[in-house]
Amino acid sequence: MQTYRLALIGFGNVGQGFAEILRDRSADLAQRFDVQFQIVAVSTKRRGSVYDARGLDLAALLSAVTAPGGLESLPVQQRGWDPLRLIRESNAEVVVEVSPTDLQTAEPALSHVRAALEAGKHVVTANKGPVALAYAELAALARARGKTLGVEGTVMGGTPVLRLGQELLSAAGIHQMQGILNGTTNYILTQMENGATYAAALAEAQARGYAEADPTADVEGYDVAGKVVILANLFLGAGLTPAQVDRQGITQLTPDDIAAARAAGERWKLIGRVERQGGQLAASVRPTRLPLAHPLAGVSGAGNALTFSTDLLGDVTLAGAGAGRVETGYAILGDLLALHRQTRG
Amino acid sequence: MQTYRLALIGFGNVGQGFAEILRDRSADLAQRFDVQFQIVAVSTKRRGSVYDARGLDLAALLSAVTAPGGLESLPVQQRGWDPLRLIRESNAEVVVEVSPTDLQTAEPALSHVRAALEAGKHVVTANKGPVALAYAELAALARARGKTLGVEGTVMGGTPVLRLGQELLSAAGIHQMQGILNGTTNYILTQMENGATYAAALAEAQARGYAEADPTADVEGYDVAGKVVILANLFLGAGLTPAQVDRQGITQLTPDDIAAARAAGERWKLIGRVERQGGQLAASVRPTRLPLAHPLAGVSGAGNALTFSTDLLGDVTLAGAGAGRVETGYAILGDLLALHRQTRG
Repeated sequence: MQTYRLALIGFGNVGQGFAEILRDRSADLAQRFDVQFQIVAVSTKRRGSVYDARGLDLAALLSAVTAPGGLESLPVQQRGWDPLRLIRESNAEVVVEVSPTDLQTAEPALSHVRAALEAGKHVVTANKGPVALAYAELAALARARGKTLGVEGTVMGGTPVLRLGQELLSAAGIHQMQGILNGTTNYILTQMENGATYAAALAEAQARGYAEADPTADVEGYDVAGKVVILANLFLGAGLTPAQVDRQGITQLTPDDIAAARAAGERWKLIGRVERQGGQLAASVRPTRLPLAHPLAGVSGAGNALTFSTDLLGDVTLAGAGAGRVETGYAILGDLLALHRQTRG
Repeated sequence: MQTYRLALIGFGNVGQGFAEILRDRSADLAQRFDVQFQIVAVSTKRRGSVYDARGLDLAALLSAVTAPGGLESLPVQQRGWDPLRLIRESNAEVVVEVSPTDLQTAEPALSHVRAALEAGKHVVTANKGPVALAYAELAALARARGKTLGVEGTVMGGTPVLRLGQELLSAAGIHQMQGILNGTTNYILTQMENGATYAAALAEAQARGYAEADPTADVEGYDVAGKVVILANLFLGAGLTPAQVDRQGITQLTPDDIAAARAAGERWKLIGRVERQGGQLAASVRPTRLPLAHPLAGVSGAGNALTFSTDLLGDVTLAGAGAGRVETGYAILGDLLALHRQTRG
């Protein structure tokens, strides 16, 4: 049985969801994949930082993160190391970067990922910043060091859309992608179809925890623009930047717009799209009226879906959860199992 | 660059579609995957059989199969070998079994696949018979000989639904699958929704080449039942047989049934389904009324889709072409590239 030691940088929903999967499924993973994942280090911004070369107890870790003393109440070898020290000096072989996304600077995640690869560690991340803003540099660095860079969690949560494209569709010739890549806005649009105003639907999304107190990144399309850039980076080999995406959010949609679409047998969706046009890329995020028979029109609530248009297979659409604690935690596990398949050969 | 020598047993739509992909994309495959696939042998039932250890010319092969003299008009080293001799005595490392499916006996494909694995050759097949009726035996044989058995083309044509399940969703805990797995019947149902009678829709499907002269296997659900058994074999580890599938086709559906569904905001689809219920499996093929918002309701025409229900990710749905010459040819290429990834380590 092969063991991988992990350092988690960030321990919010994704990190905790992943730790819950490991807590509940370790025996199953060992039996089916002959593998064991051991969390040796966790760094958080406000709940402390812990490291134990012998591994951390997952149940204790998950309790401590919400308890009064935070992580540093745990009986471990080291407390208070900063992220870069954990990355460089812990005995982890894989750094799991799950700190909050910043699509302007990609920091501090970008520095974490760079430091990890430079220290000869594999990286798995669900952080969109580094993958949207510096993928070419990081992928080249990973290749040069013979390490892997797993990014499945950056688009559509744990639904394995990036590996579908990279491993199973790459020979089919992908030339365009379009999809519903933000669950918050799709939830709001679904509520508006059911009669809510934009303001009421947004309030409901906030009450359910789908939308942040400041919903700008979601409702103005910045989140989707970042994902569109990631798709372009991975599948169309392009150095697109978020600023080059023609972006429009859903804040201007009125009940009249919704009703007009319905009367025409159509439905509004916030569609992220990128395609090759001649030697150039065209990328956009835009509310779009789709006929009900369109494969993306049926994606409702907080669901996500992406259609790859390919030369050999035509259109291939994957639909699934776009968020959720355990669902996005699964993205981390998927990247680790892919690393295990490659390592084992 | 690694070269794989292939023997094709059968050279109908799937085999020719695959040969066309190789003819058109060899340079791309060599550049991107550092691999070359060389067809050295082709066996057909009525158009002859050819073998040349140095490789066959693909353009000449594709012309000859429809020309008066058939394949044996080609200038090659050996003509007229039977399939088993080609499998055992040719220098092919991979046997590509694409002869017509027989869901009663699985023959002659079953004998071909057995002979190939016993001779120490990898197998890639789009033939449902052996995978529905003898998967456990063949998978064990492949393991024992250290060879791979690729079966992507048996369900949803080239749309990589089986590798999605096996490689990307296996850790998520698949407990149920349901889908639209037959393009012919889905095309007929779509035409009936547009106002055609069953008889007229069937005639149209036959005119377009979607349905055979004897449409029984499609319209009575036998084809879907075979695919449901394949899904059970691959993902639920079960020795289900086609006879154990509770099967009902679409031949009894009337325009009144279609209208009643529409009036209720629903749509008829022929749904293949298999799930764990306690320690048992329940499997069925049955015309089913789905609400329009259901992820499978939007799949129209000859399209296919499958929903995996999983413990960790919830529902994940893949939709794409279920048939087509080049599309199913891509399934063969996908399995060969997977073999290449594994071999290269």
